[in-house]
Amino acid sequence: MQPQYQMGYDRAITVFSPDGRLYQVEYAREAVKRGTTAVGIKAKDGVVLIVDKRVSSKLLEASSIEKIFKIDEHIGVASSGLVGDARALVDRARVECQINRVSYDEPIEVEALSKKLCDHMQNLTQYGGIRPYGTALLIAGVSDGDCRLFETDPSGTLLEYKATGIGIGRPAAMKVFEEEYNPEAEIKDAILLGLKALHSATEGKFDVDTVEIGVIGKENPAFRKMSREEVASFVEQFKP
Amino acid sequence: MQPQYQMGYDRAITVFSPDGRLYQVEYAREAVKRGTTAVGIKAKDGVVLIVDKRVSSKLLEASSIEKIFKIDEHIGVASSGLVGDARALVDRARVECQINRVSYDEPIEVEALSKKLCDHMQNLTQYGGIRPYGTALLIAGVSDGDCRLFETDPSGTLLEYKATGIGIGRPAAMKVFEEEYNPEAEIKDAILLGLKALHSATEGKFDVDTVEIGVIGKENPAFRKMSREEVASFVEQFKP
Amino acid sequence: MQPQYQMGYDRAITVFSPDGRLYQVEYAREAVKRGTTAVGIKAKDGVVLIVDKRVSSKLLEASSIEKIFKIDEHIGVASSGLVGDARALVDRARVECQINRVSYDEPIEVEALSKKLCDHMQNLTQYGGIRPYGTALLIAGVSDGDCRLFETDPSGTLLEYKATGIGIGRPAAMKVFEEEYNPEAEIKDAILLGLKALHSATEGKFDVDTVEIGVIGKENPAFRKMSREEVASFVEQFKP
Amino acid sequence: MQPQYQMGYDRAITVFSPDGRLYQVEYAREAVKRGTTAVGIKAKDGVVLIVDKRVSSKLLEASSIEKIFKIDEHIGVASSGLVGDARALVDRARVECQINRVSYDEPIEVEALSKKLCDHMQNLTQYGGIRPYGTALLIAGVSDGDCRLFETDPSGTLLEYKATGIGIGRPAAMKVFEEEYNPEAEIKDAILLGLKALHSATEGKFDVDTVEIGVIGKENPAFRKMSREEVASFVEQFKP
Amino acid sequence: MQPQYQMGYDRAITVFSPDGRLYQVEYAREAVKRGTTAVGIKAKDGVVLIVDKRVSSKLLEASSIEKIFKIDEHIGVASSGLVGDARALVDRARVECQINRVSYDEPIEVEALSKKLCDHMQNLTQYGGIRPYGTALLIAGVSDGDCRLFETDPSGTLLEYKATGIGIGRPAAMKVFEEEYNPEAEIKDAILLGLKALHSATEGKFDVDTVEIGVIGKENPAFRKMSREEVASFVEQFKP
Amino acid sequence: MQPQYQMGYDRAITVFSPDGRLYQVEYAREAVKRGTTAVGIKAKDGVVLIVDKRVSSKLLEASSIEKIFKIDEHIGVASSGLVGDARALVDRARVECQINRVSYDEPIEVEALSKKLCDHMQNLTQYGGIRPYGTALLIAGVSDGDCRLFETDPSGTLLEYKATGIGIGRPAAMKVFEEEYNPEAEIKDAILLGLKALHSATEGKFDVDTVEIGVIGKENPAFRKMSREEVASFVEQFKP
Amino acid sequence: MQPQYQMGYDRAITVFSPDGRLYQVEYAREAVKRGTTAVGIKAKDGVVLIVDKRVSSKLLEASSIEKIFKIDEHIGVASSGLVGDARALVDRARVECQINRVSYDEPIEVEALSKKLCDHMQNLTQYGGIRPYGTALLIAGVSDGDCRLFETDPSGTLLEYKATGIGIGRPAAMKVFEEEYNPEAEIKDAILLGLKALHSATEGKFDVDTVEIGVIGKENPAFRKMSREEVASFVEQFKP
Repeated sequence: MQPQYQMGYDRAITVFSPDGRLYQVEYAREAVKRGTTAVGIKAKDGVVLIVDKRVSSKLLEASSIEKIFKIDEHIGVASSGLVGDARALVDRARVECQINRVSYDEPIEVEALSKKLCDHMQNLTQYGGIRPYGTALLIAGVSDGDCRLFETDPSGTLLEYKATGIGIGRPAAMKVFEEEYNPEAEIKDAILLGLKALHSATEGKFDVDTVEIGVIGKENPAFRKMSREEVASFVEQFKP
Repeated sequence: MQPQYQMGYDRAITVFSPDGRLYQVEYAREAVKRGTTAVGIKAKDGVVLIVDKRVSSKLLEASSIEKIFKIDEHIGVASSGLVGDARALVDRARVECQINRVSYDEPIEVEALSKKLCDHMQNLTQYGGIRPYGTALLIAGVSDGDCRLFETDPSGTLLEYKATGIGIGRPAAMKVFEEEYNPEAEIKDAILLGLKALHSATEGKFDVDTVEIGVIGKENPAFRKMSREEVASFVEQFKP
Repeated sequence: MQPQYQMGYDRAITVFSPDGRLYQVEYAREAVKRGTTAVGIKAKDGVVLIVDKRVSSKLLEASSIEKIFKIDEHIGVASSGLVGDARALVDRARVECQINRVSYDEPIEVEALSKKLCDHMQNLTQYGGIRPYGTALLIAGVSDGDCRLFETDPSGTLLEYKATGIGIGRPAAMKVFEEEYNPEAEIKDAILLGLKALHSATEGKFDVDTVEIGVIGKENPAFRKMSREEVASFVEQFKP
Repeated sequence: MQPQYQMGYDRAITVFSPDGRLYQVEYAREAVKRGTTAVGIKAKDGVVLIVDKRVSSKLLEASSIEKIFKIDEHIGVASSGLVGDARALVDRARVECQINRVSYDEPIEVEALSKKLCDHMQNLTQYGGIRPYGTALLIAGVSDGDCRLFETDPSGTLLEYKATGIGIGRPAAMKVFEEEYNPEAEIKDAILLGLKALHSATEGKFDVDTVEIGVIGKENPAFRKMSREEVASFVEQFKP
Repeated sequence: MQPQYQMGYDRAITVFSPDGRLYQVEYAREAVKRGTTAVGIKAKDGVVLIVDKRVSSKLLEASSIEKIFKIDEHIGVASSGLVGDARALVDRARVECQINRVSYDEPIEVEALSKKLCDHMQNLTQYGGIRPYGTALLIAGVSDGDCRLFETDPSGTLLEYKATGIGIGRPAAMKVFEEEYNPEAEIKDAILLGLKALHSATEGKFDVDTVEIGVIGKENPAFRKMSREEVASFVEQFKP
Repeated sequence: MQPQYQMGYDRAITVFSPDGRLYQVEYAREAVKRGTTAVGIKAKDGVVLIVDKRVSSKLLEASSIEKIFKIDEHIGVASSGLVGDARALVDRARVECQINRVSYDEPIEVEALSKKLCDHMQNLTQYGGIRPYGTALLIAGVSDGDCRLFETDPSGTLLEYKATGIGIGRPAAMKVFEEEYNPEAEIKDAILLGLKALHSATEGKFDVDTVEIGVIGKENPAFRKMSREEVASFVEQFKP
Repeated sequence: MQPQYQMGYDRAITVFSPDGRLYQVEYAREAVKRGTTAVGIKAKDGVVLIVDKRVSSKLLEASSIEKIFKIDEHIGVASSGLVGDARALVDRARVECQINRVSYDEPIEVEALSKKLCDHMQNLTQYGGIRPYGTALLIAGVSDGDCRLFETDPSGTLLEYKATGIGIGRPAAMKVFEEEYNPEAEIKDAILLGLKALHSATEGKFDVDTVEIGVIGKENPAFRKMSREEVASFVEQFKP
């Protein structure tokens, strides 16, 4: 609970508080912290994204809970936080990719795309009449033969990780990664490590229907979401 | 009742609260929760929408309480929440369908239309000088031979369901669906299940005049609202 | 009287309250509830509008208190609530009718006009920098040989009635209609029923100078306001 | 004095209070009620406007206190309330008259002009960023051989009177008119009645220097302000 | 000191208070009341403006304290209140004069110019996002052989006086004028009367360096500021 | 410290307080009063500007603390108050000078430039959405063979002085000038007087590194900043 | 913690407080004070920038924490404060450099670029609807054979230093520089001094992975970031 004297800084536009923080941005981060868990891991031969879809009802078509998005042939994204905000960011990302292809006749670099998105997010923290995005993204891709894995946040900060997590389960996932991450692991081992992180983050509440996996290989890089069968095979292999 | 310390977050534009929520969006959802009940059910051979029209006076022309709308040949919509807001969204949906036909000479995909509407709704939660929509939609249709049933909410979140409900009777309706939904049921059985859900949601207060049914079949898909006679026949068949 | 804790929701633009209501719209409805009474009745052969003009001073030219307006050849309107707001809406309605005649070379449908007005009213509840209209309209007309009688409210909700009332005397008028409305009645009987409703709503305080009657017949539909002589004749026939 | 709980409704733009009133409009009416008294009387053969100029200092050029304005050949206006606001409205009225002459090559109807002014005044009560006019007008003129006398108020309400008054002395003036108004009186008798009303409204404090009279006759209608000599002659004839 | 309950009306834009006053305008008048004294007197053969320059330091170049401005060949102005605001108004006045000369090839009438300035000042009391001018003007000139002397105030009210004063010494100056003003006096006597008024208003604290005199004669009208020598001669003649 | 009841007048845009003051302007003046001291002195044969640069750290390049600016060949400026604001004003001044040279092919008059800057400053006190400048300028130059020395303030007031000071040391500097200013002094004596004023204003804390001197001579007027050597020579000559 | 009575000055746009300060600017400075430490040192033969990257997790790719940026061939920048804001400023700086090359066919002067950036930052403290930048920059470069080292702050103030620091460790770093700075040192000694300052500022918590060094030499000036190997070599040489 915020004490009463801070109420003045929350209204209207994003302004500084006396200690130099932007409350609206901090609050937007809370929206991310309350989101479902998503993890990303760089393997020796590719990058992996895994998300917890947390289907609340069996009446829901799990396929409609989209948390991993293919952005361009060589880039995929996982999101956590406000669902509508994520979709708006994903749309913008896809347009940026197409602009790059039309303008330069080549795919956009993963880092260049990530910076463009973060510039846009920073703008929304500085100008009035609009609120920051309440969403974080993990951006996975391959540029010039290098695996890249970026994480954005509502302030427009951009960081690259070897392995990372966003959403409610981030602390648990990071603990797993800090203890067990191996940069020499191959994709399939990275997936198993990601499932372990997700298992820890969700207290074991996941199965083939609540897990979504996206992957891109270093060779012939093409981001794709795994089929239900592939996911099932990994979930089965996984021993918590 | 909201305690006093939250008042600051409700005003002016949609801003984040300290715990990362958008109050104006949460309040708009309350408008939906106070709306009349609408349910949607996917059958093996089509999709069904049923609404409770709750006619408050016999002087009212029941036909003027429109809660089910034909959007395009292959798409229908049921709404709950603020009536004026629903009409504004329906108008926008119809225009999107026509734009698609004019631009690509083919009907819009149900999912594409649903995303466009949700993108618009998300926008209204992010920019100042306008409030979110106080309405939810069930969007039923057939694309590429598949039955689709989407639910939108004021935040611009989009989910697909096998069977779902919106409005004041949602909890009661969902309980019925969770217990009895059968994906192999045919349209006529789906209608009877929907009536059961509505019966539970309205505590039995409905008859032929307060029920509106929309339906679209997988074969030769064309959304239509049922005539009073057809509705009457189903209401008669229905044994609570 | 509103308790103090709700004051925050009333200011600036039309925003949601924690329970999902739009206070500015609710308050605009209060302006309508404080307006003079107007009633509308569908007869077998036409539609009738009757208003109480409540002339407060004999120095006033009763003819200048205009509460019934001819909108187009086949459409008339009665208003209650803020007088200036009603005139603004009536002007807009007349323009819409002319646009339709110019664009399609035919009179606008009563329902189409009513929806256009309500769409406009809904807009004013959603965008900032403008307040909702503090007025309600009864829209009477004939389209394709059918009698139509619509009621609008400040939220942009549109309903069709067999018989209805707006303004301060609505509850009393509705009671009369619920007990005595007969869809098979002819125009002259409908007028007498309307006078009865108005008599009840005004506690008997009316005479030929304070009553204004508008009427449109199904055959050769042309809306017209009755002359003082015609009104006098009905007021005389009327036995409370 | 307004109680404290209403303060929230007075700020920023003109919004509804919980009981459906527009406080800024009500307050603008107070500006009118504190203005100098002006009266208008329809005679059998013309219309008369009389104002109290209340010259506060003998150093003031009484001619510079303009409260009666010729708008067009056939229309005159008397004002009460904020002086600057009145001049702004008078300027707008004159422009409307010229537009009509240029567009249709004929003088504007008195009622049409009055409605145009009121539409403008209503607009200022609905849109943000501007306050309502703090002035009321009496509009006197002759159209199609009929004498017309309209009264406007800050809400944009328009009413026609046989005889009426605005400003601080309205209650006293109306009392005189209600008791003694005679529609068959000729202009000169109407002027004497108007002086009586003004005498009552100002508690007898007027003389030839503080009274301004405007008049228009039914035959060969041309609005004119009376000369000091004519005013003096009527003031002399007048026996309180 | 304003009591606490009125604070709400002072903010943002110029709005009405419950008793129909525009506080921002009243407060702007206070800025005028705190300004230096300026007086204007109509003589039989011209108009005189005299101001108290109240030089606070001998290091100040008295010539840079400009309180009397030549606007056009036949018009001069004296100001009191906020110095920057006065200069902005004077600039506007000069432009209006040039526009008139270019458009009609003749000098603007003194009254027409005064009205244009007041219309502008009224505008600033009605629209949001700008404050009223905190300055009053005395406008002296000759049109069509007549001497004119107008006074403006922050509300846009325009009055013509035989003799008047603005600023902190207005009450004292008016008292002198009410007792001793003589419309038949010639310019030189009018100047002596003005000095007497200024002497009373400043409690005798003035000399040749703190007095500025502007004058325009009826014959061959050309407004000019008097030289130090001329001013000295009048100050010497003056016996308090 | 401002008492609590005045808080309402400080927000949003520059509005009048009940006693006719513009608080935002008064507060901007406080920013000037907290600035470093700058003095200007008119000599018989030129104008001198001297500023205290108050270098807080020996790591600072003293040359980067610019408080005296050459605006045009014949005009220089010294500033006190917010550094960023001063630079913005200086940029504007330089552009005005170039516009004049391009438009009229001659240097701008010192007074004309000063008025243009003050008009701009006044504007910022009247329109919303922008704050006043928190800076004051001393503008020194030669036009038509006359030495000019103007002082601006945040309200847009413009005054010309024989000798003056701005910033925190103004009271001390003015005291020196009032006692010792001699209009017949030559530039070098004026510099020594200025150093004395600065010495008094800074309580003796200055040396060759913290003093900046700008000077323009009446003959062949060209504003220039003195070299470190020249400054050193004067600082040595100076005996407190 | 700010006392309650100052809350009014923090909201909406950047306004003056009663004591002439701009709170939003002061608060933005707090964001800088909470940033990571960056130091800059002028050597005899070049300029050095050193930053503490404070990598919080070994999973982070240290290369993605960019605190030193090459702006143009001859200019580099180090930042502290909000990361997203810094990137926005860096983008703007790069564009300014390119504009200069395109317009004048030569590299921009270091001081000219620094002023352009500060002008932009000052603007954001004066206009409404946008907040100031929460970042400070050290701008290092060589123009016309001179080494330059500028420091900006959120108010748009620009200062040049011999050696300086920004961010949380500024006080500790400045203490080191004040005691040990030697303008005759060569680049490699300047780097060792900078490491000492950083060591003091971070309480010894740094190693080759958390230190980033940028350098530009006076001869053949080209700004470059040092390789990991070079950084390692200096870190090894450094004895605290």
